Amino acid sequence: MAWNRVAVVGAGLIKMGELFDQSFEMMAAGAFNAAVASVDKGFDPKAVEAAFVATQRGTLWGQEGISGNTVPTAIGLAGIACTRIENACPSGSDAFRVGAMAVASGVHDLVLVIGVEKMRDKSTEEGLLSRAASGHPILTRGETAPVLFAPFATRHMHEFGTTREMLASVAVKNHHNGSLDPYAHFQNEITIEQVLASPAVCTPLHLLDCCPQTDGAAAVLLAPADRAHEFTDRPVYVAGFGVATDHPYLHEKTSFVTLQATVEAAKRAYAMAGVEPADIDMAEVHDCFTITEILDIEDLGFVEKGKGGIASLNGETALTGRIPVNTSGGLLAEGHPIGATGIAQLAECWWQLRNEAGDRQVEMRNGLALQHNVGGRGSGVSVVNILTTNR
Amino acid sequence: MAWNRVAVVGAGLIKMGELFDQSFEMMAAGAFNAAVASVDKGFDPKAVEAAFVATQRGTLWGQEGISGNTVPTAIGLAGIACTRIENACPSGSDAFRVGAMAVASGVHDLVLVIGVEKMRDKSTEEGLLSRAASGHPILTRGETAPVLFAPFATRHMHEFGTTREMLASVAVKNHHNGSLDPYAHFQNEITIEQVLASPAVCTPLHLLDCCPQTDGAAAVLLAPADRAHEFTDRPVYVAGFGVATDHPYLHEKTSFVTLQATVEAAKRAYAMAGVEPADIDMAEVHDCFTITEILDIEDLGFVEKGKGGIASLNGETALTGRIPVNTSGGLLAEGHPIGATGIAQLAECWWQLRNEAGDRQVEMRNGLALQHNVGGRGSGVSVVNILTTNR
Repeated sequence: MAWNRVAVVGAGLIKMGELFDQSFEMMAAGAFNAAVASVDKGFDPKAVEAAFVATQRGTLWGQEGISGNTVPTAIGLAGIACTRIENACPSGSDAFRVGAMAVASGVHDLVLVIGVEKMRDKSTEEGLLSRAASGHPILTRGETAPVLFAPFATRHMHEFGTTREMLASVAVKNHHNGSLDPYAHFQNEITIEQVLASPAVCTPLHLLDCCPQTDGAAAVLLAPADRAHEFTDRPVYVAGFGVATDHPYLHEKTSFVTLQATVEAAKRAYAMAGVEPADIDMAEVHDCFTITEILDIEDLGFVEKGKGGIASLNGETALTGRIPVNTSGGLLAEGHPIGATGIAQLAECWWQLRNEAGDRQVEMRNGLALQHNVGGRGSGVSVVNILTTNR
Repeated sequence: MAWNRVAVVGAGLIKMGELFDQSFEMMAAGAFNAAVASVDKGFDPKAVEAAFVATQRGTLWGQEGISGNTVPTAIGLAGIACTRIENACPSGSDAFRVGAMAVASGVHDLVLVIGVEKMRDKSTEEGLLSRAASGHPILTRGETAPVLFAPFATRHMHEFGTTREMLASVAVKNHHNGSLDPYAHFQNEITIEQVLASPAVCTPLHLLDCCPQTDGAAAVLLAPADRAHEFTDRPVYVAGFGVATDHPYLHEKTSFVTLQATVEAAKRAYAMAGVEPADIDMAEVHDCFTITEILDIEDLGFVEKGKGGIASLNGETALTGRIPVNTSGGLLAEGHPIGATGIAQLAECWWQLRNEAGDRQVEMRNGLALQHNVGGRGSGVSVVNILTTNR
């Protein structure tokens, strides 16, 4: 591997769902404790030197306040360095990259990367109003997430003959995977017929083409690679990562069948890791909508542009397929607690790389897993992280 | 110096003030262009590989939206990696630390750290409402910034005999310095009598004890130390930094005459840089209120605990004093555009270290400048950065 100075020595999350009974702070503590408990040889929580907290709505939604610096007290580590990272839907995956760079820089050895998001609580009328008000005052009114992604589905259908059944097959697969994941928000199987018959949200995306709004938290513990064996005999290393931005608004896009930020972020991550798409054993990708997973697997280089729909329908991305995708259930079934999402995906990659994914376990031939998010108003930013068991 | 792998090769800001005529994006572009123009041997803007954007209210205040990933397009660099850092009032100084770690990690060479904040625009009623709603629903209602800091002033007066005149002397000094700073929001001199006679905001803090709400943007350009001479023959290096959190709420504080987060952050920064408080030539510190600067100069080790008020009144922190503090005018006069504040302070340090501060220039005996912010609900987090011309 080209770059593996940093190891992931622990990972954990809390059961995703509608967590009205847990505060932001309780969720953070749950994820942190799960990550600490996952460390094979034990981990003294007090050894954490610095934390990076991913949360997108920490200043928006009433109760959380200035969220970065409230987390240390919540997890019993008041005093440590703590920084909030916000980068739209890739907030968690970007916090992971920043945490990895902090370790690689030599400044911090033991680093916590934690994502926490309360999506379901709307404690105040103002919280709702402030969300409705965000975005450019003229250009982005009414641009909810389904509205931003539906044109990509329409255009993909037009150019490549992608069908609603192909879109639906992504939701069916991910719900199946979610049914095997004890942390998933949704653990029920669904059928293509149910997806097709679900209510339209923004044509051609129907309700079961859309991920839920989920409360959740996830955490990983990082250490310098040369200290990894203090914590585990089965370390996972950071092989590479890449971040890319794109023009933030839809009217500036040059394509509606490619998310250019994903293409660029992946290129950078593959180059840093010194690997090719075909080397990747499994991937957790950003399926906020069924069409998004189809775009992702094309833009990440797993299938040819335009073939994502048929590949999904044919089972190429299933647990037993050529390139298993979203073995956790993905955003569609495990859920999408924004700041926590990327870190939960990384936890799934960590389990798969360590052969700890239970009934969801896939074959890891090369010891390489990829994690991906894309987000912002019409895919303004993408982050790709690549993990490996190779050193 | 203990740690100087990273150099600051450019720094710039825009005139602070009420910038109703500039969008968030225009302000970002102005600061970026100023930083690029400041590079002695020239700097190709396209060479920037990654950006870290400090903005606290980017998701709160209506028009900015998902602010991290909108900045690259705004400054002509769509595509580059870009990450938003939010850490309350130290957002800018913490983004600087994260940018420095990104360079030191070897992942990115040329990094932009940019802070942008629109404080004066309140484009929607919802923007105001959402601010009022933030914070714990029971514990923090009514906890505006003056309310959070006034008890520290009261207690400091009680324990150490600090007077309102001593507080006022900080505002008088910083307004004098601001009158010499072309970027300052306020460029007028004031008198102790004017501070004392200004309206009470939260006793004992009066209007002129409080910093203004300021729109602003500032940027610095970082490079690996061993590449600095491509850009300048007078590089400034990152000597060290430290971040510390504290319990976020006032009722959890153990002292009202010390900001513990500042003490810890400073300890870490001094240790990393291998220097002592007495080695520092000048400092830009967080004077959101006059009492805050008095606490800061004590907590940073420049004067003994309890002596900050009399030291200020006696001119020890003036331009010609033993340890000049807030030569830019500080938050009280240059202004406090939250995400931009720390980076504007670092720009002032950079100018002082390069002997480019004009009429504000102080004597730089050791080539060491310190920058400090503290923030969050009742000082939940503090960041200290130390810059040097020594290698």
